[in-house]
Amino acid sequence: MKYSSKLIADAVSEFQKLPGIGEKTALRLVLHLLKQDKQKVAYFSEAVSRMRSEIRFCSRCQNVADHELCDICGNNMRDQTQICLVESIRDIIAIENTNTYRGTYHVIGGVISPIDGVGPDQLNIPGLLERVQAGGVKEVIMALSPTIEGDTTIFYISRKLKDYEVQITSIARGVSFGGELEYTDELTLGRSIATRLPYENTSLKSS
Amino acid sequence: MKYSSKLIADAVSEFQKLPGIGEKTALRLVLHLLKQDKQKVAYFSEAVSRMRSEIRFCSRCQNVADHELCDICGNNMRDQTQICLVESIRDIIAIENTNTYRGTYHVIGGVISPIDGVGPDQLNIPGLLERVQAGGVKEVIMALSPTIEGDTTIFYISRKLKDYEVQITSIARGVSFGGELEYTDELTLGRSIATRLPYENTSLKSS
Repeated sequence: MKYSSKLIADAVSEFQKLPGIGEKTALRLVLHLLKQDKQKVAYFSEAVSRMRSEIRFCSRCQNVADHELCDICGNNMRDQTQICLVESIRDIIAIENTNTYRGTYHVIGGVISPIDGVGPDQLNIPGLLERVQAGGVKEVIMALSPTIEGDTTIFYISRKLKDYEVQITSIARGVSFGGELEYTDELTLGRSIATRLPYENTSLKSS
Repeated sequence: MKYSSKLIADAVSEFQKLPGIGEKTALRLVLHLLKQDKQKVAYFSEAVSRMRSEIRFCSRCQNVADHELCDICGNNMRDQTQICLVESIRDIIAIENTNTYRGTYHVIGGVISPIDGVGPDQLNIPGLLERVQAGGVKEVIMALSPTIEGDTTIFYISRKLKDYEVQITSIARGVSFGGELEYTDELTLGRSIATRLPYENTSLKSS
């Protein structure tokens, strides 16, 4: 498209680099910002720029942090004996929003995937081992993607942890609440039967 | 949602203010930016901030401009005797992308709509009259929305222009190319029959 202003064209082109935003949407966003007060647009621009330039990563779990430790690692009310292993910050946000977990996290940054060139060395596994070696950790909860790569990563890490006195658990896999059995894929449904639980254990309660 | 960093929360909340962007999308955009180089995010933030703070509006037609006059008003290759009247900058971009119009524009900033509290005084109509009074304008093309408000505005402006030697035209309204007659609304289809043209005039050619 042609814009009669280079400033507009530049802003549209920057918005277009964001995921899921095409040229028409980018233009709509830019024309929206153009109608706002200069001050409001300055806030927007500054929030984005500060977010990237000032963000830190927790020295313990690699979660995003405003200080040396993130709000979760630095919180004494959280159970520091539990570590929930996740791939990314996004997963922490998802689990936090369930309001059911009171332990800590550890972000490894992905899963082992030879096809994408990701080996164990690219992941933040040494950080996890250090935390376990330091003692005080009773349980490591594997909350990785339920895929071949996720399972491979869980297997790899569980081997690394086998010499330590730590319980390794995995989040439950099975049919979704509200889902229909007939539309659940065979693998999930088959596993959910194989890993069935005594009825008393299946009620929702926080850990 | 809960974010363990205020920087992230602020950026998400700013993105959420944009039209069509909810909290989940805002978070996806923020986490995407978080993975980019600091330099790239600085470019993004700067392009947005400069766009709003340095943008100017053409003193002649109110289009966006990087200088005193916009690229269209300042271009001697454009036919300065034709003025295409539009509601907004977005309409200029849409018409420019058709590559069929070589005249100039005039942005009035909306249409007369008493229900929204917009009267003729809120629109940039005096600017248009000045340009016509100054002479040299042969044609004013009305390219406003095909709504009651658009028609009212066209009527109002045409009355204001009636003392000047200037031809007033309106963009054609009728069935869309590729549209199906049976799904065209009655008003459009009825008008398209009433305003039918000799066959020779209906081939696509640039003005």
